[in-house]
Amino acid sequence: MKKHTLSVVVENKPGVLTRVASLFRRRGYNIDSLTVGATENPSISRMTIVVQGDEKVLEQVSKQLYKLIDVIKVIDLTEERAVERELVIIKVNADNNVRADIVQIVDIFRARIVDIGRNTLIIEVTGDSNKIDAIVESLKPFGIKELVRTGKIAMIRGGKKCN
Amino acid sequence: MKKHTLSVVVENKPGVLTRVASLFRRRGYNIDSLTVGATENPSISRMTIVVQGDEKVLEQVSKQLYKLIDVIKVIDLTEERAVERELVIIKVNADNNVRADIVQIVDIFRARIVDIGRNTLIIEVTGDSNKIDAIVESLKPFGIKELVRTGKIAMIRGGKKCN
Repeated sequence: MKKHTLSVVVENKPGVLTRVASLFRRRGYNIDSLTVGATENPSISRMTIVVQGDEKVLEQVSKQLYKLIDVIKVIDLTEERAVERELVIIKVNADNNVRADIVQIVDIFRARIVDIGRNTLIIEVTGDSNKIDAIVESLKPFGIKELVRTGKIAMIRGGKKCN
Repeated sequence: MKKHTLSVVVENKPGVLTRVASLFRRRGYNIDSLTVGATENPSISRMTIVVQGDEKVLEQVSKQLYKLIDVIKVIDLTEERAVERELVIIKVNADNNVRADIVQIVDIFRARIVDIGRNTLIIEVTGDSNKIDAIVESLKPFGIKELVRTGKIAMIRGGKKCN
């Protein structure tokens, strides 16, 4: 089943997250990732939801989302020319004898080192899912202690707006 | 009221997001931002939740979170030495005569241009909330068409782990 990236523009009000999440839940959609954060307008939040599922059911879900109070707009960014980005921070084992190798990987992926511990490094990297997966694979041999992903956010390329 | 950053480690199962979100909702907590995404272990997801609220009530919420099935660990990262990062993508008006000014701001903030439209640029930037707020302020005069934030993710500095 295809992965879909939905951008859901909502009023920044209590309970909207719960309502949106339960709608997906009731339809049996498992959410791969979800982010909700502020936008350029303080009274409006934007959720980016990545789900896998049947196209027709997703169309129904979109229609039902519109019926929810506080939902302003729903866009399936899967079909659009969109910039898709995710942020990941990775804590990796990094003894002195492997640090240079890790720094090289960091440079190749245009990632950044954001913390240096005694035997660990924390690396931040942004990109699409493929790039994230690739750097994670490259770092695995050193031992990944911890990894947090934000989930994807997306935006239509060019001048067109989502909300 | 103080902002708190909670890291909630959960089993990657349907319904867990809804249950966690409604718990905050019932306690009257408004969630500033929430992300949920994969970790180094495919069967485990990690939610990072930023909330404002009374310390004592938050302690109760943490205890109740632990009672939820599928919740493995709850850490209040507010008190810890933590790396905190957020990703933002910003679509800004960028006619030819102001592009150089925008590129300069992008360089200062170590941001990146990820799309060039006819009259717009899309910029990605990562950092803590202060840095994000600062670049947004710097770009406002050009006209921000659209802005999406992932919400914050966080990790304890050094070798210590959250899960």
